[in-house]
Amino acid sequence: MDNRRRMPPAGELRHQSPSNDNQATDNQSQSAEAAAAAAIAAAAADAEAAGLWTQIKAEARRDAEAEPALASYLYSTILSHSSLERSISFHLGNKLCSSTLLSTLLYDLFLNTFTSDPSLRNATVADLRAARVRDPACISFSHCLLNYKGFLAIQAHRVSHKLWTQSRKPLALALHSRISDVFAVDIHPAAKIGKGILLDHATGVVVGETAVIGNNVSILHHVTLGGTGKACGDRHPKIGDGCLIGAGATILGNVLIGAGAKVGAGSVVLIDVPPRATAVGNPARLVGGKEKPTIHDEECPGESMDHTSFISEWSDYII
Amino acid sequence: MDNRRRMPPAGELRHQSPSNDNQATDNQSQSAEAAAAAAIAAAAADAEAAGLWTQIKAEARRDAEAEPALASYLYSTILSHSSLERSISFHLGNKLCSSTLLSTLLYDLFLNTFTSDPSLRNATVADLRAARVRDPACISFSHCLLNYKGFLAIQAHRVSHKLWTQSRKPLALALHSRISDVFAVDIHPAAKIGKGILLDHATGVVVGETAVIGNNVSILHHVTLGGTGKACGDRHPKIGDGCLIGAGATILGNVLIGAGAKVGAGSVVLIDVPPRATAVGNPARLVGGKEKPTIHDEECPGESMDHTSFISEWSDYII
Amino acid sequence: MDNRRRMPPAGELRHQSPSNDNQATDNQSQSAEAAAAAAIAAAAADAEAAGLWTQIKAEARRDAEAEPALASYLYSTILSHSSLERSISFHLGNKLCSSTLLSTLLYDLFLNTFTSDPSLRNATVADLRAARVRDPACISFSHCLLNYKGFLAIQAHRVSHKLWTQSRKPLALALHSRISDVFAVDIHPAAKIGKGILLDHATGVVVGETAVIGNNVSILHHVTLGGTGKACGDRHPKIGDGCLIGAGATILGNVLIGAGAKVGAGSVVLIDVPPRATAVGNPARLVGGKEKPTIHDEECPGESMDHTSFISEWSDYII
Amino acid sequence: MDNRRRMPPAGELRHQSPSNDNQATDNQSQSAEAAAAAAIAAAAADAEAAGLWTQIKAEARRDAEAEPALASYLYSTILSHSSLERSISFHLGNKLCSSTLLSTLLYDLFLNTFTSDPSLRNATVADLRAARVRDPACISFSHCLLNYKGFLAIQAHRVSHKLWTQSRKPLALALHSRISDVFAVDIHPAAKIGKGILLDHATGVVVGETAVIGNNVSILHHVTLGGTGKACGDRHPKIGDGCLIGAGATILGNVLIGAGAKVGAGSVVLIDVPPRATAVGNPARLVGGKEKPTIHDEECPGESMDHTSFISEWSDYII
Amino acid sequence: MDNRRRMPPAGELRHQSPSNDNQATDNQSQSAEAAAAAAIAAAAADAEAAGLWTQIKAEARRDAEAEPALASYLYSTILSHSSLERSISFHLGNKLCSSTLLSTLLYDLFLNTFTSDPSLRNATVADLRAARVRDPACISFSHCLLNYKGFLAIQAHRVSHKLWTQSRKPLALALHSRISDVFAVDIHPAAKIGKGILLDHATGVVVGETAVIGNNVSILHHVTLGGTGKACGDRHPKIGDGCLIGAGATILGNVLIGAGAKVGAGSVVLIDVPPRATAVGNPARLVGGKEKPTIHDEECPGESMDHTSFISEWSDYII
Amino acid sequence: MDNRRRMPPAGELRHQSPSNDNQATDNQSQSAEAAAAAAIAAAAADAEAAGLWTQIKAEARRDAEAEPALASYLYSTILSHSSLERSISFHLGNKLCSSTLLSTLLYDLFLNTFTSDPSLRNATVADLRAARVRDPACISFSHCLLNYKGFLAIQAHRVSHKLWTQSRKPLALALHSRISDVFAVDIHPAAKIGKGILLDHATGVVVGETAVIGNNVSILHHVTLGGTGKACGDRHPKIGDGCLIGAGATILGNVLIGAGAKVGAGSVVLIDVPPRATAVGNPARLVGGKEKPTIHDEECPGESMDHTSFISEWSDYII
Repeated sequence: MDNRRRMPPAGELRHQSPSNDNQATDNQSQSAEAAAAAAIAAAAADAEAAGLWTQIKAEARRDAEAEPALASYLYSTILSHSSLERSISFHLGNKLCSSTLLSTLLYDLFLNTFTSDPSLRNATVADLRAARVRDPACISFSHCLLNYKGFLAIQAHRVSHKLWTQSRKPLALALHSRISDVFAVDIHPAAKIGKGILLDHATGVVVGETAVIGNNVSILHHVTLGGTGKACGDRHPKIGDGCLIGAGATILGNVLIGAGAKVGAGSVVLIDVPPRATAVGNPARLVGGKEKPTIHDEECPGESMDHTSFISEWSDYII
Repeated sequence: MDNRRRMPPAGELRHQSPSNDNQATDNQSQSAEAAAAAAIAAAAADAEAAGLWTQIKAEARRDAEAEPALASYLYSTILSHSSLERSISFHLGNKLCSSTLLSTLLYDLFLNTFTSDPSLRNATVADLRAARVRDPACISFSHCLLNYKGFLAIQAHRVSHKLWTQSRKPLALALHSRISDVFAVDIHPAAKIGKGILLDHATGVVVGETAVIGNNVSILHHVTLGGTGKACGDRHPKIGDGCLIGAGATILGNVLIGAGAKVGAGSVVLIDVPPRATAVGNPARLVGGKEKPTIHDEECPGESMDHTSFISEWSDYII
Repeated sequence: MDNRRRMPPAGELRHQSPSNDNQATDNQSQSAEAAAAAAIAAAAADAEAAGLWTQIKAEARRDAEAEPALASYLYSTILSHSSLERSISFHLGNKLCSSTLLSTLLYDLFLNTFTSDPSLRNATVADLRAARVRDPACISFSHCLLNYKGFLAIQAHRVSHKLWTQSRKPLALALHSRISDVFAVDIHPAAKIGKGILLDHATGVVVGETAVIGNNVSILHHVTLGGTGKACGDRHPKIGDGCLIGAGATILGNVLIGAGAKVGAGSVVLIDVPPRATAVGNPARLVGGKEKPTIHDEECPGESMDHTSFISEWSDYII
Repeated sequence: MDNRRRMPPAGELRHQSPSNDNQATDNQSQSAEAAAAAAIAAAAADAEAAGLWTQIKAEARRDAEAEPALASYLYSTILSHSSLERSISFHLGNKLCSSTLLSTLLYDLFLNTFTSDPSLRNATVADLRAARVRDPACISFSHCLLNYKGFLAIQAHRVSHKLWTQSRKPLALALHSRISDVFAVDIHPAAKIGKGILLDHATGVVVGETAVIGNNVSILHHVTLGGTGKACGDRHPKIGDGCLIGAGATILGNVLIGAGAKVGAGSVVLIDVPPRATAVGNPARLVGGKEKPTIHDEECPGESMDHTSFISEWSDYII
Repeated sequence: MDNRRRMPPAGELRHQSPSNDNQATDNQSQSAEAAAAAAIAAAAADAEAAGLWTQIKAEARRDAEAEPALASYLYSTILSHSSLERSISFHLGNKLCSSTLLSTLLYDLFLNTFTSDPSLRNATVADLRAARVRDPACISFSHCLLNYKGFLAIQAHRVSHKLWTQSRKPLALALHSRISDVFAVDIHPAAKIGKGILLDHATGVVVGETAVIGNNVSILHHVTLGGTGKACGDRHPKIGDGCLIGAGATILGNVLIGAGAKVGAGSVVLIDVPPRATAVGNPARLVGGKEKPTIHDEECPGESMDHTSFISEWSDYII
Repeated sequence: MDNRRRMPPAGELRHQSPSNDNQATDNQSQSAEAAAAAAIAAAAADAEAAGLWTQIKAEARRDAEAEPALASYLYSTILSHSSLERSISFHLGNKLCSSTLLSTLLYDLFLNTFTSDPSLRNATVADLRAARVRDPACISFSHCLLNYKGFLAIQAHRVSHKLWTQSRKPLALALHSRISDVFAVDIHPAAKIGKGILLDHATGVVVGETAVIGNNVSILHHVTLGGTGKACGDRHPKIGDGCLIGAGATILGNVLIGAGAKVGAGSVVLIDVPPRATAVGNPARLVGGKEKPTIHDEECPGESMDHTSFISEWSDYII
């Protein structure tokens, strides 16, 4: 079997893949119609971001009033800013700075990058919605914006990825290093990541250089999308849209996790998983068998976040 | 089988569960006798804490004399303080602060919380003793107090938990976020945790919102007490008194790990484990079989810390 | 079977083990010939280090010119220093400092230790080469020097280990604590580690007090070399030269991983692995069977970094 | 002439001198009546402080609403605190800290001192009122509390003075050093200073060890109350109640500036100035002549702040 | 004599006064011709600033090459920035920040203000030229930009003044306080200051609320432009274009120092000084006598900086 | 009269002038005898420094025991160091650092400079003794070492001066700027300063580029040794050995203050002062008259510190 090829079969990635998405942004020559559509979409995205930002400020204002001890924090990070981009640039600049990489330098870098490419802001909005909807412990957008290391790590990654695509590799890698130090989330700047991502808990997540993650994916902590050795080239997993990757799962090599698939917690996956199938165990096996794996109904487990309904099929406490 | 109900069967949690403990502190109406007994217990706890604090200062003084390069650190964190509560409030305030959450603010918060609820200090004392007794690498109480991220994360969690019970959720969550950033230990403020806890190494521990951990439990690093999806409600594990949870174990859903049970390193547990039974593997199986699992002699594996005596029964290197 | 003894059988550790290496440095009475040879070796090591340092500065200068936003960082960490030892002492001092352990104190400590024992610098050089050769994501030596938390954690560990051997235990443990906080890499100061080590990604690595790691070993993130309980004494794994330990592998107890062996990602290993054998799974099994395990051709998988070629033998997606 | 004696003649210091004030607080044996009166006075002082604190918070809240960029600052310094003492302890702790004297330590020190001696808080209140009434550039109490280096230097001095009287001299001097570094205001910890003091602009003020400053005094920047040489003993000026000392005035030796006297800007004074007289020039001369100096009507020039009405008598531009 | 009026007599202020200058910028309705002229002037100013910035970067690059120990500083403050405004905003943000006023917030504030009002940048350029031409100790523009506290204090003042004119008084005063703490230069935000100003050494300079300083003025350290008491209203000195105010001079009240006048070091001035006259001494007298003061040839002593040529006329060592 | 020449007449500078001293160190070709004498002198200086260092540590240990709140500060600054040079390098590095000039960089710079030139250390020892003997408020050597901004500013100046003489001007000026910011003491790096100097209080002292200060001089705060204009060349005062310069004195131009002379507080001096004469007032006059000035008995007023014995001759309160 050949697990070295890697153009995902048609249909596996229902939404636009992030790699396509990026290419589109970068170099597609748009017709006039497309330009108009894009303008409309951009305006809609702006409106959505503005609405969300209004809500975030309202949440922060409510919390600041209820809790004076936190008000200084909320004003400096949220309430003193005029936009989501400024707020997150400020927050990341202060979180990721060090004595040799000053907060002012990072703030400038984040703000310039967010301002120059609205798609980053749109992805931020989608990620905030993802956390709010999928994580029952997420009590407000502002809570996610300020406190979720997975959310923050991804936003910072998007900036380092942008730098990487602009051939500013040393800067991208320095930022990568700070993200890994501060959040214990290690995403290579070259990795391509979609929108609507939830990195829940996030500590220990590792995503390799040639990994691709689709849209609306949920990934728990300690998940590895790792490589296969010291050879260069395309050597990391591709995660389809809507996938759910359980805590501590290790996926190695240029394998494809099909759209809507689930990988159980603690699984070690080295072979493709078909769309909407479920892989569990170490080594991972497909629920239902490799010949005719069970295909679940959920189109987007990354959104439903059901980790355990396959328990009875899998674990029966027999040695 | 129904793993959604969750009042632990009588006898499974031999000591008072932390949830009961907390309720008692909060709203039990005590008779005069009970009040007298409580006063005696409080005096005894104060005496124990004072004795331990004397010992910690003696250790720190000895180390400061032997190692001038460390003396400044030991004086600022231990020797300049008049009580364990002040020392730990100072140390946590300086460790968990950031440019937007000042050390003075956190110090104030910690000190006020420790001072207002002596049960926190008592739990700190029990945790220090747990580390000193159970971890052969722990060479002194002061070493644990200053350097054990698991110990420090739990003490900070107890404060965030207190804030949570006082409906100061945004502040509790901001503190939670700092603990997760600084120690890579992610314990939801709502989680209830007993006394005499050892989080050994601690990096990567994740404990969900509705999890409960009994007394005298030992939990190694990378352990997850996780949820089952995006539904709200009681959805995280309950760990009985005296349990031992091995490194990298993943326990998901509202399952009960019975008092004195062991969970082997790297196990993935999604179903209840009976008291004093042992679960190992991915998916976890009960040693001895699910019908009649082996019940070990140890009443409190969380204290004996025996990780590997079940090896011969479990792993035999046969594919 | 007895897994408590632990002198590795002859031949299993082809290179000098780090424990021997250290003893040699400390107390071997050398003949005149040996002294001459040592002087020649020292001169060669100096030359190698100087050459590498020249290259690192050239890389940094190139990057500073191409990326002014990063130049300040590159000058302060690399280009303003006259030697590799000064650069790394400066960088670690600034990364590991806290409000109670000042950067100037740590810088002094690192610089004095590196200067007083050239073997540390030599090991640093070997580690830099290991990362550069084995990790396809490592684009330059300077990138590794500045940004690899695994590399930095090991260099800091070597200093804490040196302090430990000088009976400066409280200082060694304070440093250990900072490394664990900042890099989420937890290596006990007493652990003995060889040269040419790659800790790839590194987050969550835990190495216990009596563990020994040979030369030219590669260890992925989330790997545990853990103990067996609360008994003191020799209780942690011994990793032979050239081993490759996959992501999330948990090796517990005083077991021997023979030279050139591989441990698969996510494996839980509690029994010895023969040289050049491969152990996979939870619980781990030997590829080829315990009676006659497959012995691979690679002398040094820690260098070849092949994680997945044993897939077809192991995982076949059958429940 | 003898300028070494120095008990101010009766009547010169109309209000209680600060030295008496302090002694009273410390060791006076009060009769029952006196105790009752003191309790009433204390309650009145508490009420005044509470009222002022309410006003300060209202000012800060108004400013925070009008200026989100400043809200974080206002919340952390004022609005998150429950009392004036906590606010000023926090603010001074953060302003005076250094890498070797941590903010948490200083905060603790300030808070403990303010809490243990209410007379400090009362003096703070009087100083705030002094600035608000006398300085037309002072637009609010909160403005003075946060931004007036003279005000802040005096409050910090009162704490260092308290430490000095408790024979904690090294700590008092370390604090003194920080005040001098941060505010460029150098007041020896032993100097006795009354209430209702305005140090306007304050940069460069120097007050020596045995200096005494009465109540309701206003002192401009660059003013020196200096000594006479290297002999120990009482060697610095005594400033009576209600005096006004102009910018850059230098008063040297154990001289007495009588109650209600004025010293002109830039004057150099080495001999006593009678009550309500005016000294100007270098060397200073008494307006009206030394035999029969002009006695002005103002009882308290320190409050009226009239610097220049004596111009026509003094300066006429003739060489 | 009436020293309360204060419209400077025609001719005394040869250049545009800074107050007029500001009004012009704000609300003058310009004709088309004026608009064209303004556009040309703006372009010229941009070109001049660009040229100066090019030179500053060249100086910094030369210094960075010659002195690696300083290169990090030079890159972070100058070489990594794309314009003078960004460089100075970064530098001031890092110099003036505190634990409660973050560098990122200040950087944002400075950058927004400099960007929104080009006249600030133009004044910065003029001040840089003033220091370079007039101060023989100023060896380069970059030296002044980085190291001259007087220069930096004025640039920060211009921002606080802008905030003041926008009725953002609390923020202006907070900034004012930081400038006074950090640079020991205390300029009230309301004070109006022209272009081409040199504050040499600068420590201890105090400029009151209603003071006005013309263009091309040089002011030495310890100079006070102070008020006359607690009455509100116009109460501080007006310094005409081209004046030179010697070290330690104290000028009090709403007096006018005519264009091109000199005030000798240590002088105390309370009455007007005619244009191109010289006032010296305490109290100040006019050189040549008040009836017919000597009028010197220098049109702009603030540029020639001749402090001492009037010595023989003034001081002859006779008591 | 010509005040532009400036080789001090023989006898005016009794001790070696600092300029000669420095030249000697740099480029004198010593005979064998001289070399032997120098070696003996160096050994004596080493012994004196070692003795003083022992005493400083004893003082600090005593204070640390008496005041635990200060112990951390005393250990980090004094007790953890092995020599006076290391202690002062550490202390200055931490005091003078900023976010763009790191403490580790400055520490390195100070330590290297002190180590490479023992004459700096010897001057430090003489300055410590000067403060201890002359200032009655100086209660211990350690108090001076830690807390005297004048002492610290001079030590830092000596390093910046050394850099200046090595043609490392930009670094010297950056350091100069930090000294001026932090201590409000502004000494140009080129200024030559002798040994046994006391800068008492020190705030506001300004010393120009071509100024020279002899040995055993005492200078109070706000003293200016300033220039005469914008011409380059030798334009600042020369202060002979043993002089005493009172607070706020302003000495301008290339004038010579003869050995053992006194300048009264607040004086403005623009002409030479003969040895052992006293100049007072603004403008300064010689006590006794310019034709036959009074020559006092004190050989070294800088040591006796008598500021005021000349009062009766000078000031008599007559207008």
